[in-house]
Amino acid sequence: MTTSDADSHSGSAHHADAATFSASATKSDIYSTALDAAEALFSDTNFWPSNLANAASLMWYAFEALEMKVNWAGFYICSPDEPKSKLLLGPFMGKVACQSIVIGSGVCGTAAATRETQVVPDVEKYPGHIACDGETKSEVVVPLVDREGGVHGVLDVDCLVLDGFTEDDVKFLEKMAALIITFCKF
Amino acid sequence: MTTSDADSHSGSAHHADAATFSASATKSDIYSTALDAAEALFSDTNFWPSNLANAASLMWYAFEALEMKVNWAGFYICSPDEPKSKLLLGPFMGKVACQSIVIGSGVCGTAAATRETQVVPDVEKYPGHIACDGETKSEVVVPLVDREGGVHGVLDVDCLVLDGFTEDDVKFLEKMAALIITFCKF
Repeated sequence: MTTSDADSHSGSAHHADAATFSASATKSDIYSTALDAAEALFSDTNFWPSNLANAASLMWYAFEALEMKVNWAGFYICSPDEPKSKLLLGPFMGKVACQSIVIGSGVCGTAAATRETQVVPDVEKYPGHIACDGETKSEVVVPLVDREGGVHGVLDVDCLVLDGFTEDDVKFLEKMAALIITFCKF
Repeated sequence: MTTSDADSHSGSAHHADAATFSASATKSDIYSTALDAAEALFSDTNFWPSNLANAASLMWYAFEALEMKVNWAGFYICSPDEPKSKLLLGPFMGKVACQSIVIGSGVCGTAAATRETQVVPDVEKYPGHIACDGETKSEVVVPLVDREGGVHGVLDVDCLVLDGFTEDDVKFLEKMAALIITFCKF
Protein backbone atom coordinates (compact mmCIF):
# COMPACT_ATOMS: atom_id res chain seq x y z
CA MET A 1 0.00 0.00 0.00
CA THR A 2 1.39 3.32 -1.03
CA THR A 3 -0.77 6.37 -0.64
CA SER A 4 -0.52 10.02 0.06
CA ASP A 5 -3.51 9.96 2.31
CA ALA A 6 -3.98 6.73 4.19
CA ASP A 7 -6.63 7.84 6.68
CA SER A 8 -5.17 5.93 9.54
CA HIS A 9 -1.51 6.62 8.96
CA SER A 10 -0.09 8.72 11.76
CA GLY A 11 3.23 10.49 11.99
CA SER A 12 6.37 8.92 10.61
CA ALA A 13 5.81 5.37 11.91
CA HIS A 14 4.74 2.65 9.50
CA HIS A 15 1.88 0.26 10.15
CA ALA A 16 4.16 -2.68 9.31
CA ASP A 17 6.32 -1.81 12.32
CA ALA A 18 3.49 -3.13 14.51
CA ALA A 19 4.29 -6.62 13.24
CA THR A 20 8.05 -6.25 13.71
CA PHE A 21 8.89 -7.82 17.05
CA SER A 22 12.26 -7.82 18.76
CA ALA A 23 13.82 -11.28 18.67
CA SER A 24 15.31 -10.66 22.11
CA ALA A 25 11.95 -9.85 23.75
CA THR A 26 10.30 -12.29 26.13
CA LYS A 27 7.12 -14.13 25.21
CA SER A 28 5.20 -11.98 27.65
CA ASP A 29 6.57 -8.79 26.03
CA ILE A 30 5.79 -9.97 22.51
CA TYR A 31 2.21 -10.96 23.35
CA SER A 32 1.65 -7.71 25.23
CA THR A 33 3.00 -5.69 22.27
CA ALA A 34 0.83 -7.61 19.80
CA LEU A 35 -2.33 -7.09 21.86
CA ASP A 36 -1.60 -3.37 22.31
CA ALA A 37 -1.03 -3.04 18.54
CA ALA A 38 -4.27 -4.91 17.84
CA GLU A 39 -6.27 -2.66 20.13
CA ALA A 40 -4.77 0.49 18.55
CA LEU A 41 -5.50 -0.77 15.02
CA PHE A 42 -9.01 -2.05 15.80
CA SER A 43 -10.03 1.23 17.40
CA ASP A 44 -9.73 2.86 13.94
CA THR A 45 -12.39 0.68 12.27
CA ASN A 46 -15.09 -1.88 13.07
CA PHE A 47 -14.87 -3.47 9.59
CA TRP A 48 -14.20 -7.11 10.49
CA PRO A 49 -12.25 -8.08 7.34
CA SER A 50 -9.69 -5.31 8.05
CA ASN A 51 -9.30 -6.19 11.71
CA LEU A 52 -9.12 -9.96 11.23
CA ALA A 53 -6.53 -9.51 8.46
CA ASN A 54 -4.32 -7.38 10.72
CA ALA A 55 -4.91 -9.76 13.67
CA ALA A 56 -3.74 -12.73 11.57
CA SER A 57 -0.58 -10.81 10.64
CA LEU A 58 0.13 -9.84 14.27
CA MET A 59 -0.30 -13.42 15.47
CA TRP A 60 1.87 -14.79 12.63
CA TYR A 61 4.80 -12.46 13.26
CA ALA A 62 4.52 -12.81 17.06
CA PHE A 63 4.81 -16.60 16.71
CA GLU A 64 7.65 -16.20 14.19
CA ALA A 65 9.57 -13.97 16.64
CA LEU A 66 9.10 -16.69 19.26
CA GLU A 67 10.41 -19.30 16.78
CA MET A 68 7.20 -21.31 17.13
CA LYS A 69 6.45 -23.51 14.12
CA VAL A 70 3.02 -22.00 13.39
CA ASN A 71 2.01 -22.79 9.79
CA TRP A 72 -1.46 -21.19 9.74
CA ALA A 73 -3.08 -18.37 11.71
CA GLY A 74 -6.47 -16.99 10.78
CA PHE A 75 -10.22 -17.02 10.97
CA TYR A 76 -13.42 -18.72 9.91
CA ILE A 77 -16.60 -16.63 10.00
CA CYS A 78 -20.22 -17.72 10.36
CA SER A 79 -21.79 -17.77 6.89
CA PRO A 80 -24.04 -14.72 6.35
CA ASP A 81 -26.56 -17.05 4.66
CA GLU A 82 -26.33 -20.01 7.07
CA PRO A 83 -24.90 -18.60 10.34
CA LYS A 84 -26.09 -21.54 12.45
CA SER A 85 -24.68 -24.28 10.26
CA LYS A 86 -21.64 -23.13 8.30
CA LEU A 87 -18.28 -21.41 8.83
CA LEU A 88 -16.57 -19.74 5.86
CA LEU A 89 -12.87 -18.98 5.45
CA GLY A 90 -11.82 -15.48 6.50
CA PRO A 91 -8.48 -13.61 6.48
CA PHE A 92 -5.42 -15.70 7.36
CA MET A 93 -1.65 -16.05 7.09
CA GLY A 94 -0.31 -19.33 5.71
CA LYS A 95 -1.03 -21.72 2.88
CA VAL A 96 -4.35 -22.09 1.06
CA ALA A 97 -7.15 -23.43 3.29
CA CYS A 98 -10.54 -25.15 3.09
CA GLN A 99 -13.29 -22.64 2.30
CA SER A 100 -16.13 -23.98 4.45
CA ILE A 101 -16.72 -26.06 7.57
CA VAL A 102 -19.94 -27.49 9.01
CA ILE A 103 -20.60 -26.13 12.53
CA GLY A 104 -20.59 -28.96 15.07
CA SER A 105 -17.90 -31.16 13.55
CA GLY A 106 -14.10 -31.01 13.50
CA VAL A 107 -12.04 -28.74 15.73
CA CYS A 108 -13.29 -25.43 14.27
CA GLY A 109 -16.88 -26.63 14.06
CA THR A 110 -16.78 -27.93 17.64
CA ALA A 111 -15.38 -24.65 18.98
CA ALA A 112 -18.19 -22.76 17.26
CA ALA A 113 -20.88 -25.18 18.47
CA THR A 114 -19.69 -25.46 22.10
CA ARG A 115 -18.47 -21.83 22.44
CA GLU A 116 -15.37 -23.29 24.13
CA THR A 117 -11.69 -23.07 23.17
CA GLN A 118 -10.39 -26.31 21.68
CA VAL A 119 -6.73 -27.19 22.38
CA VAL A 120 -5.61 -30.18 20.31
CA PRO A 121 -2.06 -31.39 21.10
CA ASP A 122 -2.21 -34.06 18.34
CA VAL A 123 -4.62 -33.54 15.47
CA GLU A 124 -4.21 -37.16 14.34
CA LYS A 125 -5.96 -38.24 17.54
CA TYR A 126 -8.91 -35.91 16.95
CA PRO A 127 -11.98 -37.96 15.97
CA GLY A 128 -12.58 -37.91 12.23
CA HIS A 129 -9.68 -35.55 11.61
CA ILE A 130 -9.10 -34.29 8.08
CA ALA A 131 -6.59 -31.44 7.71
CA CYS A 132 -6.33 -28.62 5.19
CA ASP A 133 -2.58 -29.06 5.52
CA GLY A 134 -1.18 -32.56 6.06
CA GLU A 135 1.83 -31.08 7.86
CA THR A 136 -0.22 -29.68 10.77
CA LYS A 137 0.42 -31.53 14.04
CA SER A 138 -1.36 -29.47 16.72
CA GLU A 139 -4.03 -26.79 16.78
CA VAL A 140 -5.89 -24.24 18.93
CA VAL A 141 -9.32 -22.89 18.02
CA VAL A 142 -10.93 -20.05 20.01
CA PRO A 143 -14.60 -19.21 19.30
CA LEU A 144 -15.56 -15.56 18.71
CA VAL A 145 -18.47 -15.23 21.15
CA ASP A 146 -20.22 -11.97 22.05
CA ARG A 147 -21.64 -11.01 25.48
CA GLU A 148 -25.03 -12.43 24.58
CA GLY A 149 -23.48 -15.79 23.70
CA GLY A 150 -23.75 -15.30 19.95
CA VAL A 151 -21.02 -16.96 17.87
CA HIS A 152 -19.56 -14.98 14.96
CA GLY A 153 -16.72 -17.28 13.93
CA VAL A 154 -13.49 -18.84 15.21
CA LEU A 155 -9.81 -17.94 15.53
CA ASP A 156 -7.72 -20.90 14.33
CA VAL A 157 -3.96 -21.49 14.72
CA ASP A 158 -2.07 -24.56 13.47
CA CYS A 159 1.44 -25.75 14.39
CA LEU A 160 3.91 -28.09 12.70
CA VAL A 161 4.93 -29.73 15.99
CA LEU A 162 2.96 -31.87 18.45
CA ASP A 163 1.68 -30.07 21.55
CA GLY A 164 2.76 -26.78 19.99
CA PHE A 165 0.82 -24.43 22.29
CA THR A 166 1.26 -23.67 26.01
CA GLU A 167 -1.33 -22.23 28.39
CA ASP A 168 0.22 -18.79 27.85
CA ASP A 169 -0.19 -19.11 24.09
CA VAL A 170 -3.85 -20.05 24.51
CA LYS A 171 -4.42 -17.10 26.87
CA PHE A 172 -2.89 -14.76 24.26
CA LEU A 173 -5.22 -16.11 21.57
CA GLU A 174 -8.25 -15.77 23.86
CA LYS A 175 -7.31 -12.14 24.59
CA MET A 176 -6.99 -11.49 20.84
CA ALA A 177 -10.44 -13.04 20.31
CA ALA A 178 -11.89 -10.84 23.08
CA LEU A 179 -10.47 -7.69 21.41
CA ILE A 180 -11.98 -8.76 18.10
CA ILE A 181 -15.41 -9.19 19.68
CA THR A 182 -15.11 -5.78 21.37
CA PHE A 183 -14.11 -3.84 18.26
CA CYS A 184 -15.62 -5.62 15.23
CA LYS A 185 -19.08 -5.35 13.72
CA PHE A 186 -20.08 -8.72 12.26
CA MET B 1 -8.22 -26.04 10.14
CA THR B 2 -8.91 -29.55 11.23
CA THR B 3 -12.33 -30.95 10.60
CA SER B 4 -14.07 -34.19 9.85
CA ASP B 5 -16.36 -32.57 7.35
CA ALA B 6 -14.81 -29.67 5.50
CA ASP B 7 -17.42 -29.22 2.75
CA SER B 8 -14.89 -28.45 0.11
CA HIS B 9 -12.25 -31.02 0.97
CA SER B 10 -11.97 -33.61 -1.77
CA GLY B 11 -10.13 -36.94 -1.73
CA SER B 12 -6.80 -37.27 0.00
CA ALA B 13 -5.21 -34.05 -1.29
CA HIS B 14 -4.83 -31.12 1.09
CA HIS B 15 -5.85 -27.58 0.25
CA ALA B 16 -2.44 -26.32 1.36
CA ASP B 17 -0.85 -28.31 -1.47
CA ALA B 18 -2.30 -25.74 -3.88
CA ALA B 19 0.16 -23.20 -2.43
CA THR B 20 3.15 -25.57 -2.58
CA PHE B 21 5.01 -24.78 -5.78
CA SER B 22 7.98 -26.65 -7.20
CA ALA B 23 11.15 -24.59 -6.86
CA SER B 24 12.36 -26.02 -10.18
CA ALA B 25 9.26 -24.92 -12.13
CA THR B 26 9.42 -22.02 -14.60
CA LYS B 27 7.68 -18.72 -13.88
CA SER B 28 5.11 -19.56 -16.54
CA ASP B 29 4.40 -22.94 -14.90
CA ILE B 30 4.07 -21.44 -11.43
CA TYR B 31 1.70 -18.69 -12.56
CA SER B 32 -0.37 -21.15 -14.55
CA THR B 33 -0.59 -23.51 -11.56
CA ALA B 34 -1.58 -20.65 -9.23
CA LEU B 35 -4.32 -19.43 -11.58
CA ASP B 36 -5.69 -22.96 -12.07
CA ALA B 37 -5.74 -23.45 -8.28
CA ALA B 38 -7.49 -20.11 -7.80
CA GLU B 39 -10.18 -20.98 -10.34
CA ALA B 40 -10.77 -24.39 -8.72
CA LEU B 41 -11.02 -22.83 -5.24
CA PHE B 42 -13.18 -19.89 -6.29
CA SER B 43 -15.68 -22.13 -8.07
CA ASP B 44 -16.62 -23.57 -4.63
CA THR B 45 -17.80 -20.24 -3.16
CA ASN B 46 -18.61 -16.66 -4.14
CA PHE B 47 -17.88 -15.33 -0.60
CA TRP B 48 -15.27 -12.66 -1.34
CA PRO B 49 -13.39 -12.83 2.00
CA SER B 50 -12.69 -16.57 1.45
CA ASN B 51 -11.55 -16.14 -2.14
CA LEU B 52 -9.40 -13.05 -1.54
CA ALA B 53 -7.73 -14.77 1.44
CA ASN B 54 -6.84 -17.81 -0.67
CA ALA B 55 -5.77 -15.58 -3.60
CA ALA B 56 -3.38 -13.66 -1.32
CA SER B 57 -1.87 -16.96 -0.18
CA LEU B 58 -1.46 -18.26 -3.74
CA MET B 59 0.23 -15.05 -4.88
CA TRP B 60 2.51 -14.99 -1.83
CA TYR B 61 3.77 -18.56 -2.25
CA ALA B 62 4.07 -18.22 -6.04
CA PHE B 63 6.33 -15.18 -5.57
CA GLU B 64 8.24 -17.00 -2.82
CA ALA B 65 8.88 -19.98 -5.14
CA LEU B 66 10.19 -17.50 -7.72
CA GLU B 67 12.47 -15.96 -5.08
CA MET B 68 10.92 -12.54 -5.63
CA LYS B 69 11.21 -10.21 -2.67
CA VAL B 70 7.48 -9.59 -2.28
CA ASN B 71 6.73 -8.29 1.24
CA TRP B 72 2.96 -7.74 0.94
CA ALA B 73 0.25 -9.29 -1.25
CA GLY B 74 -3.41 -8.60 -0.68
CA PHE B 75 -6.50 -6.52 -1.20
CA TYR B 76 -8.35 -3.34 -0.39
CA ILE B 77 -12.14 -3.37 -0.82
CA CYS B 78 -14.54 -0.48 -1.48
CA SER B 79 -16.13 0.50 1.84
CA PRO B 80 -19.70 -0.82 2.07
CA ASP B 81 -20.71 2.54 3.60
CA GLU B 82 -18.69 4.84 1.30
CA PRO B 83 -17.96 2.78 -1.86
CA LYS B 84 -17.16 5.83 -4.00
CA SER B 85 -14.71 7.44 -1.62
CA LYS B 86 -12.97 4.88 0.59
CA LEU B 87 -11.04 1.60 0.33
CA LEU B 88 -10.80 -0.67 3.39
CA LEU B 89 -8.15 -3.29 4.11
CA GLY B 90 -9.08 -6.83 3.06
CA PRO B 91 -7.31 -10.21 3.33
CA PHE B 92 -3.53 -10.14 2.79
CA MET B 93 -0.23 -11.88 3.41
CA GLY B 94 2.55 -9.82 5.00
CA LYS B 95 2.97 -7.35 7.81
CA VAL B 96 0.23 -5.18 9.33
CA ALA B 97 -1.17 -2.60 6.89
CA CYS B 98 -3.09 0.69 6.84
CA GLN B 99 -6.82 0.10 7.29
CA SER B 100 -8.27 2.71 4.96
CA ILE B 101 -7.34 4.69 1.85
CA VAL B 102 -9.12 7.59 0.15
CA ILE B 103 -10.10 6.72 -3.45
CA GLY B 104 -8.31 9.01 -5.91
CA SER B 105 -5.01 9.44 -4.07
CA GLY B 106 -1.94 7.26 -3.68
CA VAL B 107 -1.25 4.16 -5.78
CA CYS B 108 -4.21 2.12 -4.54
CA GLY B 109 -6.59 5.07 -4.62
CA THR B 110 -5.47 6.02 -8.14
CA ALA B 111 -5.95 2.46 -9.43
CA ALA B 112 -9.48 2.46 -8.02
CA ALA B 113 -10.30 5.91 -9.42
CA THR B 114 -8.83 5.39 -12.92
CA ARG B 115 -9.76 1.68 -13.24
CA GLU B 116 -6.22 1.17 -14.60
CA THR B 117 -3.35 -0.97 -13.32
CA GLN B 118 -0.64 1.09 -11.63
CA VAL B 119 2.95 -0.18 -11.98
CA VAL B 120 5.32 1.77 -9.73
CA PRO B 121 9.02 0.85 -10.15
CA ASP B 122 10.09 3.23 -7.36
CA VAL B 123 7.53 4.20 -4.73
CA GLU B 124 9.75 7.06 -3.47
CA LYS B 125 9.16 8.81 -6.80
CA TYR B 126 5.39 8.49 -6.52
CA PRO B 127 3.83 11.91 -5.76
CA GLY B 128 2.97 12.27 -2.09
CA HIS B 129 4.06 8.74 -1.26
CA ILE B 130 3.53 7.44 2.27
CA ALA B 131 4.06 3.72 2.77
CA CYS B 132 2.51 1.26 5.20
CA ASP B 133 5.91 -0.44 5.23
CA GLY B 134 9.03 1.74 4.91
CA GLU B 135 10.90 -1.20 3.36
CA THR B 136 8.69 -1.31 0.24
CA LYS B 137 10.53 -0.20 -2.91
CA SER B 138 8.16 -1.02 -5.80
CA GLU B 139 4.48 -1.83 -6.16
CA VAL B 140 1.74 -3.01 -8.53
CA VAL B 141 -1.95 -2.28 -7.97
CA VAL B 142 -4.64 -3.83 -10.17
CA PRO B 143 -8.23 -2.54 -9.82
CA LEU B 144 -11.06 -5.07 -9.42
CA VAL B 145 -13.45 -3.84 -12.13
CA ASP B 146 -16.59 -5.65 -13.27
CA ARG B 147 -17.98 -5.77 -16.83
CA GLU B 148 -20.14 -2.72 -16.22
CA GLY B 149 -17.10 -0.71 -15.11
CA GLY B 150 -17.92 -0.88 -11.41
CA VAL B 151 -14.93 -0.90 -9.06
CA HIS B 152 -15.05 -3.29 -6.06
CA GLY B 153 -11.53 -2.86 -4.71
CA VAL B 154 -7.87 -3.33 -5.67
CA LEU B 155 -5.25 -6.09 -5.67
CA ASP B 156 -2.00 -4.72 -4.21
CA VAL B 157 1.48 -6.26 -4.25
CA ASP B 158 4.62 -4.68 -2.75
CA CYS B 159 8.27 -5.61 -3.32
CA LEU B 160 11.46 -4.95 -1.35
CA VAL B 161 13.49 -4.21 -4.49
CA LEU B 162 13.22 -1.41 -7.05
CA ASP B 163 11.46 -2.31 -10.31
CA GLY B 164 10.43 -5.61 -8.76
CA PHE B 165 7.76 -6.61 -11.28
CA THR B 166 8.04 -7.57 -14.95
CA GLU B 167 5.30 -7.44 -17.58
CA ASP B 168 4.69 -11.16 -17.01
CA ASP B 169 4.19 -10.56 -13.29
CA VAL B 170 1.67 -7.81 -14.00
CA LYS B 171 -0.20 -10.05 -16.48
CA PHE B 172 -0.43 -12.76 -13.81
CA LEU B 173 -1.86 -10.28 -11.31
CA GLU B 174 -4.38 -8.99 -13.87
CA LYS B 175 -5.50 -12.57 -14.61
CA MET B 176 -5.93 -13.18 -10.86
CA ALA B 177 -8.01 -10.00 -10.61
CA ALA B 178 -10.17 -11.15 -13.55
CA LEU B 179 -10.84 -14.51 -11.86
CA ILE B 180 -11.81 -12.70 -8.66
CA ILE B 181 -14.30 -10.53 -10.54
CA THR B 182 -15.75 -13.59 -12.29
CA PHE B 183 -16.26 -15.68 -9.16
CA CYS B 184 -16.83 -13.29 -6.24
CA LYS B 185 -19.99 -11.60 -5.05
CA PHE B 186 -19.14 -8.18 -3.60
